[in-house]
Amino acid sequence: MIEPRIIKELQNLVGKQHVLTSPEDLVAYSYDGTFAERRPDVVVSPNSTEQVSQIMGLAYREEIPVVPRGMASGLAAASVPINGGIVLNLCRMNRILEIDELNFTVTAEAGVVTQDLADAVARKGLFYPPDPSSIKQSTLGGNAACNAGGPRCLKYGVTSDYVRGLTVVLADGRVIKTGGKAIKNVTGYNLTQLFVGSEGTLGVITELILKLIPLPKVARTAKAVFPKLADASQCVNRILTAGITPATIELMDETTIATIEEAMHLNLPLDVEAILIIESDGMDEQRVNQEIEAIADICRATGAREVQVARTEKERNDLWVARRAISPSLARRAPNKLGEDISVPRSAIPDAVAAIKEISRQVRIPIAIFGHAGDGNLHPNILFDRRDPVQVEKMKKAAAEIFRVALQLGGTLSGEHGVGSLKRPFVEQDVGPVFIDVMNQIKKALDPKNILNPGKVIPGPVPGGRDLFAW
Amino acid sequence: MIEPRIIKELQNLVGKQHVLTSPEDLVAYSYDGTFAERRPDVVVSPNSTEQVSQIMGLAYREEIPVVPRGMASGLAAASVPINGGIVLNLCRMNRILEIDELNFTVTAEAGVVTQDLADAVARKGLFYPPDPSSIKQSTLGGNAACNAGGPRCLKYGVTSDYVRGLTVVLADGRVIKTGGKAIKNVTGYNLTQLFVGSEGTLGVITELILKLIPLPKVARTAKAVFPKLADASQCVNRILTAGITPATIELMDETTIATIEEAMHLNLPLDVEAILIIESDGMDEQRVNQEIEAIADICRATGAREVQVARTEKERNDLWVARRAISPSLARRAPNKLGEDISVPRSAIPDAVAAIKEISRQVRIPIAIFGHAGDGNLHPNILFDRRDPVQVEKMKKAAAEIFRVALQLGGTLSGEHGVGSLKRPFVEQDVGPVFIDVMNQIKKALDPKNILNPGKVIPGPVPGGRDLFAW
Repeated sequence: MIEPRIIKELQNLVGKQHVLTSPEDLVAYSYDGTFAERRPDVVVSPNSTEQVSQIMGLAYREEIPVVPRGMASGLAAASVPINGGIVLNLCRMNRILEIDELNFTVTAEAGVVTQDLADAVARKGLFYPPDPSSIKQSTLGGNAACNAGGPRCLKYGVTSDYVRGLTVVLADGRVIKTGGKAIKNVTGYNLTQLFVGSEGTLGVITELILKLIPLPKVARTAKAVFPKLADASQCVNRILTAGITPATIELMDETTIATIEEAMHLNLPLDVEAILIIESDGMDEQRVNQEIEAIADICRATGAREVQVARTEKERNDLWVARRAISPSLARRAPNKLGEDISVPRSAIPDAVAAIKEISRQVRIPIAIFGHAGDGNLHPNILFDRRDPVQVEKMKKAAAEIFRVALQLGGTLSGEHGVGSLKRPFVEQDVGPVFIDVMNQIKKALDPKNILNPGKVIPGPVPGGRDLFAW
Repeated sequence: MIEPRIIKELQNLVGKQHVLTSPEDLVAYSYDGTFAERRPDVVVSPNSTEQVSQIMGLAYREEIPVVPRGMASGLAAASVPINGGIVLNLCRMNRILEIDELNFTVTAEAGVVTQDLADAVARKGLFYPPDPSSIKQSTLGGNAACNAGGPRCLKYGVTSDYVRGLTVVLADGRVIKTGGKAIKNVTGYNLTQLFVGSEGTLGVITELILKLIPLPKVARTAKAVFPKLADASQCVNRILTAGITPATIELMDETTIATIEEAMHLNLPLDVEAILIIESDGMDEQRVNQEIEAIADICRATGAREVQVARTEKERNDLWVARRAISPSLARRAPNKLGEDISVPRSAIPDAVAAIKEISRQVRIPIAIFGHAGDGNLHPNILFDRRDPVQVEKMKKAAAEIFRVALQLGGTLSGEHGVGSLKRPFVEQDVGPVFIDVMNQIKKALDPKNILNPGKVIPGPVPGGRDLFAW
């Protein structure tokens, strides 16, 4: 519970209409993209870095937990307020401040929806590549806080590769600026990349300077159907070792294919182990055509039964329909899913997929596997029903086993979703106790009162809070 | 002075022959690539992460400063032991541990010379792009500690873009591993990038997992002579906004051209303001040829008086002779030089060059300007004679003015050399007091006894040490 005098003070800071306390409003801010849930005590929506600074000053003085929040599309419960307190809703800070066409940068507030930014810069012939599946909902601040990825990251890199500078409000309300428009910058520690991916536990990102690149003019897409998943994986290696870097190489396993087909009737083959969707893009039509044909040849040479290269934009969109249908299709198949996000060395993909299939068989719970084969980032989705405690136990068991497989193969818990609450219990297995200790020291140094998104990322007890994922 | 019992203990840890204390040995480890100089008390050369861990454990217990050192080619006095203590020479740790051709990674010890690594992976058809001018001397550990750049960074990015994982020995001797072979990794804070660029002040990098890419098969180089420097700068923007990203765009101003010509007699034009050396590379000969011709066309269209595209490998090497001749030529012109490293938004290059020329005129000291025009990273080299106190004062004044110009134009003190001792007095002007405070908090958290390369990067007094650059 937050005292009325504090609510009053918050109202004075941002205006009464931007401070929410009614139960129906609080419920709306108690979720993210997982099935976790916890109501905040109050939702505050600032409109400027200065207001965020004032709110943090107050929270610091009063020792109230603050959970920064964009559109809460996260998949690790990083923005669920597990200790209650203030949800700091940054969505009003949605201004694109400057598109610098000479220096290929854009400066924008944290609450700008990523797709809106991508559209705005595309109108100037520029390209902001990071494309998380949530791109139409999620915000730049959330993307940076979680270091979001996406299919195009194979060729273009993840969000962190595009963050050149930040404005961040610290736990005590002080404002820090990191980086800038200069491309190369080694003055002082790389605090930019310390804040990126720290999931709101070290500071509140309020403004970003992002790198842009020239907008590719052409894209061509191919679908390749592989009877054997090992062949599909071999194909990925052959493409990349040939010096070709497609924009995307997306993998769907047989469970995923079957789930999509059941829901959408797209005429997908049900007797194959894998489909790859591969996109090539660039500035020159002829070159892109050559590249996609070279890719198609490699697919055929490595055992693809069928390779379809889209000839028109409509055909290209049709190929992506299946990929985009994954999430809604999974939702039809089971009431709940736990979307995992392991990342393994690319060469370990066949072993990872085989091991996850074995887990599915042994635990007797369906797991659909899809993801970004080109960079070794897989999304095994465990399908279950939360209302059935037996299924919940199976889900937990399967998830823990999947994490174990990732680590065994030299990989990591999360490629692009982050740790949040969800994976905290597994972090130490991944990074070891010294790494945890260093994270704790840095957290204490930057947030001595532990008010910034407490109980996230770093393992440990959640004082006064509920651990939502007590595996 | 270090007590004999500690020397003895160090000898027991690494073997007597790997502990140096004689004055002539200490002198050899008292320099870097600047004109700074300070002798350590002892030089210790470990052969493994375990030995580094033991040495740090001892140093921590006894509170002895430790300065990690590769080949000491740094240009900011980061590896000069300004407090004395232990120089930790990592050059014996020069093993390439694994080249993973499937996952495009190489694992190597910190003391491997960068060119040796690049050669070893090139033999497998793989490419390690970072190419600091010191590539034939400098080591991977030093490159990572300083986040080294180089001409090719325009297209390929800097060292940090290639560091996927680290083994680091902390101040108290504990060993931490960050990252790994997985391409995407968001498990926990990005400690990898916190250690990269921290210049040995937060930990000792002993092993690195580096990203590789396919080796380009073809490179073509052009030289373009511009009567007006503003036209050369405009040319750079036109190339990049056309969606062309050459591997390198190197700029030489008229003072640099005159200095090279005086020393080397290469028949360079002495009546022009700028020469650009532009290289295009890739997998396909025809495409690279098209790209370099498109670049040559843009050069001509933006005011180049003469554009020469190398037709043979010999012609290409000849074009690079001038660029490589810069440093030796400068050495002929004046006994000393202060090589600066400002980085500005690319569009600000003409303003930066004009302002630096004005400083040169006003302070009456020669400044040669060259650098990486494509990414806004300039190396104004102030030429002077250390033995002449008047010239030293002028050098200091000009350097301070150059820093001021960089900041005024939205740039930063250092693009690729780092802060070291040299730029400490100017860091606060660049990043502000809150940034400094956060760096101090992180430094205290990771190195509570301030034994790791004390008196570097973060501004402040140097307890017990001499500030080598009291501007």
